[in-house]
Amino acid sequence: MTRMTREEIYARAVDLVKKARGKLEVVGKVSASNLEELSVAYTPGVAEPTRQVRDNHALQFQYTSRASMLAVVTDGSAVLGLGNIGPEAAMVVMEGKGVMLKHFAGVDPVPLCLNTQEPEEIIRVVKAVEPSFGFIFLEDISAPRCFYILERLTKELSIPVFHDDQDGTAVSICAAVSNALRLTAGRINDMRIVINGAGAAGLATARLLMEMGAEDITLCDVNGALGKDTQGLDEYRAAFAAKTNRGGAGTLIDALRGADILIGLSVADVVSKDMVRGMNRNAAVFCLANPDPEILPTDAAGAGARFTGSGRFDYANTINNLHAFPGIVRGTLNARAKHITTNMKLAAVRAIASFVPDDRLRDDFLMPNALDAGLSARVAESVKEAAEKDGVAGAW
Amino acid sequence: MTRMTREEIYARAVDLVKKARGKLEVVGKVSASNLEELSVAYTPGVAEPTRQVRDNHALQFQYTSRASMLAVVTDGSAVLGLGNIGPEAAMVVMEGKGVMLKHFAGVDPVPLCLNTQEPEEIIRVVKAVEPSFGFIFLEDISAPRCFYILERLTKELSIPVFHDDQDGTAVSICAAVSNALRLTAGRINDMRIVINGAGAAGLATARLLMEMGAEDITLCDVNGALGKDTQGLDEYRAAFAAKTNRGGAGTLIDALRGADILIGLSVADVVSKDMVRGMNRNAAVFCLANPDPEILPTDAAGAGARFTGSGRFDYANTINNLHAFPGIVRGTLNARAKHITTNMKLAAVRAIASFVPDDRLRDDFLMPNALDAGLSARVAESVKEAAEKDGVAGAW
Repeated sequence: MTRMTREEIYARAVDLVKKARGKLEVVGKVSASNLEELSVAYTPGVAEPTRQVRDNHALQFQYTSRASMLAVVTDGSAVLGLGNIGPEAAMVVMEGKGVMLKHFAGVDPVPLCLNTQEPEEIIRVVKAVEPSFGFIFLEDISAPRCFYILERLTKELSIPVFHDDQDGTAVSICAAVSNALRLTAGRINDMRIVINGAGAAGLATARLLMEMGAEDITLCDVNGALGKDTQGLDEYRAAFAAKTNRGGAGTLIDALRGADILIGLSVADVVSKDMVRGMNRNAAVFCLANPDPEILPTDAAGAGARFTGSGRFDYANTINNLHAFPGIVRGTLNARAKHITTNMKLAAVRAIASFVPDDRLRDDFLMPNALDAGLSARVAESVKEAAEKDGVAGAW
Repeated sequence: MTRMTREEIYARAVDLVKKARGKLEVVGKVSASNLEELSVAYTPGVAEPTRQVRDNHALQFQYTSRASMLAVVTDGSAVLGLGNIGPEAAMVVMEGKGVMLKHFAGVDPVPLCLNTQEPEEIIRVVKAVEPSFGFIFLEDISAPRCFYILERLTKELSIPVFHDDQDGTAVSICAAVSNALRLTAGRINDMRIVINGAGAAGLATARLLMEMGAEDITLCDVNGALGKDTQGLDEYRAAFAAKTNRGGAGTLIDALRGADILIGLSVADVVSKDMVRGMNRNAAVFCLANPDPEILPTDAAGAGARFTGSGRFDYANTINNLHAFPGIVRGTLNARAKHITTNMKLAAVRAIASFVPDDRLRDDFLMPNALDAGLSARVAESVKEAAEKDGVAGAW
């Protein structure tokens, strides 16, 4: 791990973008520096592949870079821990994400930072640019708008749509939960799970855990546990509140008493050692608020948690969507899948979890190294297989 | 010049895009392959430049690649000589154009091929994606919609908008006209000019020639000369018809009798040798229909034209927008200009024309080599100076 202080990292981060003038560049894959090359790559040569695509649109995926062009779409409404900072500042983050997408998924990422936060308008714009892209990667769009936008686009586009803050995070967390259960030989349907944070990641994680068999989840927001009597919930949260929270409404403190797993997807420092002390034996505390978690892993361990994890790379058990999104994106594109199904997400969970072999799996080694190039390849393969089984592959 | 036949060029063009899977690629300008690099380029480092841009939007042009990100926007409605072929097939052409833009203007071109041909919708989408780009490059949008779209976007965006089929073509043609006049010592206001083709390029060329001092222009479409009595014209063509065509309505044959300059921006083979024979002494016949011109340069010369030119690279006096758009784009961005003014276009005309020195200028050497890397640099410099004089520079 790096020895740099936070201040050093920040100073270097500013220096980096200033010198490089951003983080992404578009380059030609073909040369056009003399008349012969020009006549092939530009005019008059270009007319022939163009005519062929006109007559058979599917050829676009072979004759243009569409098959690997991925739009990183944001409205800047929920960026990092910074909140609603708008499209201009969001572009810094989208370019960083783009670098990861290129490096780990081998796609061509194009940031599209939108000047609107109106869901219908965002949907409209993404539908309009669809013919240039093979994949829509939504990023940092606030809840509950992100649920609606993902739902609509998934239904109305013919290319896959993925919201990393929802499913990238959910898949990574589910892999960590899986591997903790491998060590305790516990069953997910016996677990009392508390999720603190009812935003994009919280709801998606609850949904995916339920797909894995979880039956007892309590979803909390800043006012405590969401229950079927909680007032003022949007349709997405209300649907969850009806299915979760067996213990009835209460505070996060109440919910954590006797819980097995805490998943933090909220803000820094809202979980105390006392709260962890009240949890069950073999407790898992995965607190992912960035850059500072709900409780530091060392504090959670000190209070008796057997498993700890955070989004940070400077503690054991890093749980980061970098584990998930590159393989999901790559696998979906390799399958030429139209959609990303639940089975494809579950396949990603299993691939990430099983990437840690039995003989290496330990309380403080639940997750594979996110930087291991083999990981995204393995996840991609599993995702592709699931797409084929689900009949969504070969869309182009 | 290449010795390949048209068929060989087409076969190689298909082979090229198949093997390369398109022509453009997005790559990272920074590395993120170990934890230290990751912490600087991605998380948590990215938070700091993001916060700075949040507090000062102008920094986006320094901290992200926005300053060189150029959207190549089309609706696929007027592509090459192929017409309305839609966004999928248009992407082949946009990628080819992108390769030129990268090579000759050093920008980062992103094709945005839109799923709509509704002007208000196109305007809406471009406005929505504006925060990701430093330049909007419109391409292959049919007239008269393109006039309206360019007008509106120029008014409503805070970044420059350029429609190559209008002004790229106009600038190149005006440079050729300038250099023909250098050789004949003629004055533009004495010239009888006929433009055949009242589309995007025809109107823009007429407009720019008038800015240079031309007073006697006749604009023809497939039905003959447009005059103030011509019925069924849209507002753009009507405005021109009122200002042009001194000779009154008539056929292209009528209009060419005694004309000095013919500019062809229409379709193949609509000009005969007889029509050229009726033109004035020192006649210039610049016929740019692609891939086959209104009359072959050799035929025009045989019929008595002193100057001939075409869009093709296999005849003398190539007149191609490749002469113009790279320098205009680069110069506008170097100036950090908000708009592209008429003076900036005229500066580009002069820079292209004067790139051919007196001692090299000949009837069959009116235009510089479009592949000369020095050309776009020279055009860029002139355009930047004009932007500064016009007070539109330094917008960010």
